This record gives sequence, C-alpha cells and structure tokens, in this order.
Amino acid sequence: MFEFEIDATDPNSGGRNGRFHTPHGILQTPVFAPVGTQATVKALRPSDLHNLGATLVLSNTYHLYLRPGDELIRDLGGLHQFMGWNGPILTDSGGFQVFSLSDTRKIDDDGVTFKSHLDGSKHRFTPEKSIAIQENLGADIIMAFDECPPPTDYDYVQQSLIRTHTWAKRCVQAKTREDQALFGIVQGGIFPDLREESARFLMDLDLPGYAIGGLAVGESKAEMYKTLDALNPILPKNKPRYLMGVGAPEDVVNGVLRGVDIFDCVLPTRIARNGAALVKGGRINLRNAKFQRDSAPIDKTCTCYTCTHFSRAYLRHLVKTNEILGHILLTTHNIHFLLELVRQMRAAIDRGELTAFAADFLSHYPPVSPQAAL
Amino acid sequence: MFEFEIDATDPNSGGRNGRFHTPHGILQTPVFAPVGTQATVKALRPSDLHNLGATLVLSNTYHLYLRPGDELIRDLGGLHQFMGWNGPILTDSGGFQVFSLSDTRKIDDDGVTFKSHLDGSKHRFTPEKSIAIQENLGADIIMAFDECPPPTDYDYVQQSLIRTHTWAKRCVQAKTREDQALFGIVQGGIFPDLREESARFLMDLDLPGYAIGGLAVGESKAEMYKTLDALNPILPKNKPRYLMGVGAPEDVVNGVLRGVDIFDCVLPTRIARNGAALVKGGRINLRNAKFQRDSAPIDKTCTCYTCTHFSRAYLRHLVKTNEILGHILLTTHNIHFLLELVRQMRAAIDRGELTAFAADFLSHYPPVSPQAAL
Repeated sequence: MFEFEIDATDPNSGGRNGRFHTPHGILQTPVFAPVGTQATVKALRPSDLHNLGATLVLSNTYHLYLRPGDELIRDLGGLHQFMGWNGPILTDSGGFQVFSLSDTRKIDDDGVTFKSHLDGSKHRFTPEKSIAIQENLGADIIMAFDECPPPTDYDYVQQSLIRTHTWAKRCVQAKTREDQALFGIVQGGIFPDLREESARFLMDLDLPGYAIGGLAVGESKAEMYKTLDALNPILPKNKPRYLMGVGAPEDVVNGVLRGVDIFDCVLPTRIARNGAALVKGGRINLRNAKFQRDSAPIDKTCTCYTCTHFSRAYLRHLVKTNEILGHILLTTHNIHFLLELVRQMRAAIDRGELTAFAADFLSHYPPVSPQAAL
Repeated sequence: MFEFEIDATDPNSGGRNGRFHTPHGILQTPVFAPVGTQATVKALRPSDLHNLGATLVLSNTYHLYLRPGDELIRDLGGLHQFMGWNGPILTDSGGFQVFSLSDTRKIDDDGVTFKSHLDGSKHRFTPEKSIAIQENLGADIIMAFDECPPPTDYDYVQQSLIRTHTWAKRCVQAKTREDQALFGIVQGGIFPDLREESARFLMDLDLPGYAIGGLAVGESKAEMYKTLDALNPILPKNKPRYLMGVGAPEDVVNGVLRGVDIFDCVLPTRIARNGAALVKGGRINLRNAKFQRDSAPIDKTCTCYTCTHFSRAYLRHLVKTNEILGHILLTTHNIHFLLELVRQMRAAIDRGELTAFAADFLSHYPPVSPQAAL
C-alpha cells in the first residue's frame, strides 16, 4: 500500500509521471484534485467528476467536523460511502481553516482553540484530535496538523517550525489506521533555508508523502516558484509531493516543472460560481455585456459538455439570472480545463517534451520575474 | 404536422395513450413537462432531462421576454438551440404571469399593461404581442393569450370569458408560423356551464389542441376533478388536452383518468429546492432531524440516480448546508418520480388496467370528497 512508482521523468525539468497506490485505486500523477469542502464538489455529482476524469477529491476536516460531524460520517460507513465517491480522497488537517479564523482562535504549543464560524461554539483541535477526526472520515491520504504562518515573516516562520514539527511527530504517534497515508507538511515560508530545515526534519519521519504548505497565501508567483525550486532537489524522489491549495493553471504547470505531483484548489469551482471560465492565458467573465449575443462557446477547441453544447450568450443568461445550471456548466468547464491540462502534461512527460509544452502554455500568461524563470 | 394519434384507450376511464407529432419529435402522451422558466429546468442539464426520460419542456414567455429578450433568442437560433434542448418545447402565453402581478398590472379589453418584477419598467402584452414573442422563441406548442380569473367568482368568470375568447381569435389571426401548434385555453372557473361554453367556443376555432386553464389556483381538489369530469365528454377526442400548471402526483393521476394528456408544473423542481422529495402518498422533507443518521435512500424501490447512490443522511447534510448538489439530487428524484408515474400509467392504459393502477396509487393519498370520486 502507498507505493509510489515513477513511470517517466522529463529529461529537462523536474516533471515526472507516477502511480500512487491507495486503498481506493491507483492515482496517476501529476493529478489535480477538485475540492469538495462539505463532502461535495460544489455543483457536480460524483458521476460527473468521474466522467470528467477526476481521480482524487479533497475534503475539509474543519467543515465536516462541524457539519455533519465526523462521528456521524464514520457511523454511516466513512466519507467515501457518505458522499458516493469510490476513488481516492484526501482530507486536510483542519489547521489551515482554523488559522484562517484569525479573530476567533488562539494558538498554543498544544493546539488551537477556536470558535465555529457557524454558531460561535468553542472547539479545540490538537494534532491528536485532527488525526482522530481524519480517521473517522477515512480518507486515503490524511494530513499532519501544522501551523501555516505568514510566509514572509522570517522570525515568526522560524519559530512556528518548531511547533509544526512537534505536531507532525504527535500526528505520527496518534495515527492508528494502516489504510491511510499520513503526509507531512513542509513549512518555512519563502525562505529556502527554513524550507530545507523543515523538509529534512519531516524526511527523518519517513512518511509516505510530503506536502508543501504555506504557499499561494500572499507571496508573489516568483517567490512561490523559487521556493519550489529550492525544495525540488531536497525532497525524496520516491515519494509523492503535494502542493497544497494551488490550482491556478500557470502555477500547476510551474509546479509540475518543479517536481510536484499533487495539486488541489477551490479556484476552478469558486470562480465558476462567480461567472468566470478558465481559458488559455487567463479567464473570461460571462457577466460581461460583450457576450450577450455571442453564439460561440467559451472555447471552440474545448471538448467539455459545456463547450460542445452551449453558447457564451446562453451561459451569460444563466449567470445573469443566477440559475443553478450556470454554476453546473461553468464548474464543468473549469474542472475539465485543469484535468485536461494535467492529462496533457502527463502525455508531454511521456514524450520527454514537458518544457516545450510548458513554454507554449505559459507564453499565454504574463511573465514572472526572471529569478523564477526556468 | 401536429397529428394526434390514439394508440390505446382505457375501457373504464377517460385514460388514453397518444402520440402527438411535433417538429421536434413525437410526444408520447400522457406526458409530464418539467418547467424551465428561464430557459433551464432549474438544477438539471438537458442531458440529465433526456436521461430521465423527459420529452417535453415548458418555458415561460413572460420571463424570457424580459431576460434575455425574445429577439435575442430568435437571433441565436430560437429557444431549442439557445437552451440546448432538441425535443419539443411548450411556451405559455405570459398571461398567467402578468395577471399574477396583481398590484402592478392593468387589464383592458385590448391587453394588459404591467410593470416588470425585475426593474419596474412598463410593458404591454396583447394577444398579438404574445404570439409575436412566442414566434420569436419558436416553441413547438404555443398558447393563446387568455385571462385567468379567480375560479369561484361566477360573474367575473362569465364576464372574462368574452375577453378570453376574443383574444383567442386574435391569437389565431396573429399567428404566422406553420411549425407551431397554437392551443386554445378553456376557462370558466369551477362552473360546468361556463366551462362547456368556453370549450364549445374554442372548438369552433378548430385548434390543434386544447388546454384547461385556471385550475390549481385555490379551488379544492374535488372542484378541480369535477371540472375535469365536466369537460371530458365535451372536448374532442382527437386533440391533445393539456391541464395547465398541475403536477401534484395525485392530480396527475386524476387528470389522466379524466382524459388529460399533457401536464406541467413547477412542483417537483420547486419543492426539491426546499429540501422535499416526492414519495408515494406525499413527500418527505430532508431537513427533518429524524433523517440525520438515516442510511436508507429516499425510496428503496426508486431507480433514480439519487436513490441508487445516496442516503437520506447525506441528502439532509446537503440540504442543511445549502449545497447545490442537494438541489440537483432532489430535483432529479422528483422529476423521475413524475416521469415514472406517467410511464406506469401509459403501461396501465396499454393493459386496460388504469383504474386498478390509479386506485392503488391514490389509496396512499388522503381521500377527496365523494362528488369528485370516480
């Protein structure tokens, strides 16, 4: 269980194609995981996700702990059965969410006390509690409880590493299930020395996979890519690497170039509900009046259900009238966009042509500062 | 075009199986039409409707006239192409909707002036305008512009028949497209003599189909069924009959027993968005705390996607967290419930056993007063 086999490596970048074995099937990597915060990827059925080619779904420990409760999900057969998704699932630790409740949480060295965003009730997460909840949920991949500090404050980041590392060890000790892979989370902000320190500490724990946390939280793209550049030669080649919360298409491409295997992000589903569709080079917003009589699909070359059946004019009508079908169709397109992107990258890695594919794809996006270029 | 062939008649009731020929295919009747008010059946894709076995979709002239505009839809190829539905479509006349704007509309003998519910802007519908809009939309079945009076006020209903009949004639004269069937609407409230007068007037116009309007607007079920009893022997056997806005399962069964061929109603889609699921004998609301840990589906015998994949506990979670998937899954179940009901009635008519089927089905519902019984 939790073997990670490398099928192909790109000769000119960190890109690699792998297969990660989980109790609910083999994940082909690189993989993008749509986010199902509350045990549902918003606006899609499990069958829709399957038809789109999704293989891994992320769900949020904090939200499910509060509603409907992790013990209820356990009693109903676990998260896979509860939400009708038979493929691999990843749960986060709840840490990122409770730290985001900046006004209503208190961190100490043992854990975090916080107030529910739903009813203000008081709760406490510790590493042990996070693992207990994630064991009740029963995902294939579970995450260590960590602190996600502001990425550009060196002193704070350095201090918080002690906590994150101590908590990682407590998570390893608290874990009882053999059918879940516990990933450690490398922190260290945008500082290469701290990232290396964090990676080396966690590598000593010999975990089945390593996540890169604390990015895409306010730093520049150049800083994000530089951090990935620093970690790429350090992290073990024979373990999957998961870049948490990153899903902008250009970041996914840059992540794969730098050896990342797993991505998740609310971006494609969230912007869909705001009326935006991903296109090569950025996004278009269907609320824009210029689409009012536009009979073309979002993207003529796209093979998704939305683009093969509906005009921008119709999608604009659905968005303007706040129809549920607008959310469904834009979510479908955006998830397809990211899943198709990683499929194309896997094919490019198989051909040994990832850098050419990436250069072409990224040529449609604004350039980042030189130190982060390939 | 617009032939109506009777394939089977039930020996002990008014039930009949027919085929109505339209430019977008042959409608098998009895048929239930889901309502797509704004050119979308809320929460379902056209492919979902097709997979559920839906054949006819209703859309609302008033709403589409205001947003996105009937001329825009015409310029984009008509409603079928706009919404991606290649089967038959029926549009109402807009009359019912503008009369429902009770505070902001003014009726005269020529038409109705009203204010948009969206922005308060002033508009006017006449029989000619309603037909022009419906010709722009391009549905297969279009409706005459009528007045829908309070059904129990004899004097008002009698007076308004003059207007409804004059307007029906003006609709016939205004109509220019050969590929649309214009149905007349029989009014007359709950009064058999007025219903007969209205039916005979419209029958003189020799229209391709007849609707029964002004029911399910506050009268009792007994009064509704009595009205259908009165019309059943009068309306021509060789034309389809459409009971407007009726979709409670027990009313659909009672309608088919009394010779009705076509039904539409927002009920299955609207109650779904409120968390309710149709079951034999009534409905259950998934918000109810008793479903919190219920691992059973809505209905163990139901073959829909929702019932074959998800527990009441999961549906309750989706409804309580206001997740879009809750709307999708409950809408799927409720539409399946009504489409399966009419499929079963068609099979029962084929076997000549509609009354036995209906007696069994209706035994799960509260009895209606004797004068409306079979």
